[in-house]
Amino acid sequence: MPSYAFLVENDGTEFVGWQRQTNGPSVQQILEEAAAALNGGVIPLATASGRTDSGVHAEGQVVQIELAAALPPDRMRAALDFHVRPHRIAIRAAAFAPEGWTPRFSAIQRHYRYRILARRAKPALEEGRVWHLPLPLDSEAMHAAAQGLLGKHDFSAYRATSCQADSALRTLERLDVIRTGEEIHIFASARSFLHHQVRNFVGTLYEVGLGRRPVNWPREVLDGRDRRAAGQTAPPQGLCFLRVDFPEPLGWL
Amino acid sequence: MPSYAFLVENDGTEFVGWQRQTNGPSVQQILEEAAAALNGGVIPLATASGRTDSGVHAEGQVVQIELAAALPPDRMRAALDFHVRPHRIAIRAAAFAPEGWTPRFSAIQRHYRYRILARRAKPALEEGRVWHLPLPLDSEAMHAAAQGLLGKHDFSAYRATSCQADSALRTLERLDVIRTGEEIHIFASARSFLHHQVRNFVGTLYEVGLGRRPVNWPREVLDGRDRRAAGQTAPPQGLCFLRVDFPEPLGWL
Repeated sequence: MPSYAFLVENDGTEFVGWQRQTNGPSVQQILEEAAAALNGGVIPLATASGRTDSGVHAEGQVVQIELAAALPPDRMRAALDFHVRPHRIAIRAAAFAPEGWTPRFSAIQRHYRYRILARRAKPALEEGRVWHLPLPLDSEAMHAAAQGLLGKHDFSAYRATSCQADSALRTLERLDVIRTGEEIHIFASARSFLHHQVRNFVGTLYEVGLGRRPVNWPREVLDGRDRRAAGQTAPPQGLCFLRVDFPEPLGWL
Repeated sequence: MPSYAFLVENDGTEFVGWQRQTNGPSVQQILEEAAAALNGGVIPLATASGRTDSGVHAEGQVVQIELAAALPPDRMRAALDFHVRPHRIAIRAAAFAPEGWTPRFSAIQRHYRYRILARRAKPALEEGRVWHLPLPLDSEAMHAAAQGLLGKHDFSAYRATSCQADSALRTLERLDVIRTGEEIHIFASARSFLHHQVRNFVGTLYEVGLGRRPVNWPREVLDGRDRRAAGQTAPPQGLCFLRVDFPEPLGWL
């Protein structure tokens, strides 16, 4: 059976996250049920590059599904995009999955963006897309603090207690804090992330932005390897899974 | 009683538009009912710079309300922002309204943006914010065509049949068509607009973008002054009322 890769965008609001759960619809479940129409009625398995949490959005999630229907990727894209309606999931592109490729283990870099709305008024247009912080934040101090987290480290201090990874060793390639109008965007890139890692970075940098903690504090927290020393886990709706890189381009159609 | 100006952001999805209607909640109604809490329980009148249609969004609507409570503008802003919850309306700033000033008649320039999502996949994240057009569009041809509409003209061909303005004479200062990633943005600026004028521009430029009509066609439609000759009225959700200019800055707090 042909194996397809799909480039998937989804709004996280209505979902319990990527992974199937018993307490509500997941992106995986909706995609698998939609794909059944292209698999002789049998529900296939969908695997993804990133297991996003409830409320987290995706612009460029990558998903693999093996399907009985042998269609050219662009026609398969259109068919799946049609069948996922009316859910807020869009199939942006498709490709044949290369032999031995998997969206999770073949990924060499994952890119996330976290959006803070830094203004007094609550969000109206961007409700559900941003973390609203009505206090003045020093984004330059946050950026300086973030640079102390780059590189290969044991990120135990920034992983969720529920994190199931065997090791907390990760290599953080990018953590940029950029102000753009009323918003502050935090861009994070790494081969892989621990559970809640980006949201824990943001909740910790936030303490620096407020001036409650010095610029070197997030690095001290890192070195202490104690989750209880770090800041809060920033809320999910500000986070978006932007893009995944693979060693060879997939040839999206 | 002090008169206040408010800078208002709202998502248009849940509203029948700015103006009170019998068939659903309007931005005006929600604001007036929220403001009653700051007016001794009496519902005041709210007037606005732009009477947006149902589904049309606003980042920078300007609203005037006379209120019994005499609070500094920044405290009045916070109070009204609180009372409009949980509706998707935000009060971004406030000022004392100058003597003789009105948001409608004192405005010297209004700015709108229309967003087209020009890709095959339907919108997931931007559902309700864009007009989805899955066909290739030539944005440069659209921009060239738009330039033929600038200046002072009788815009009868681009006004809604329901438009109540006495004259169709308007001066279009800006109509730029700009591609940004998967989106095409149309920016329109004028002292004032006729009903549906921007959406009729977009629906007409769309015909040029598709290659169905030549670049000089929107200007020919203008000169013909016949609404039936123009393109369709583009759907409301792509439109956002961005900003209003006044001769003197209001001193937003």
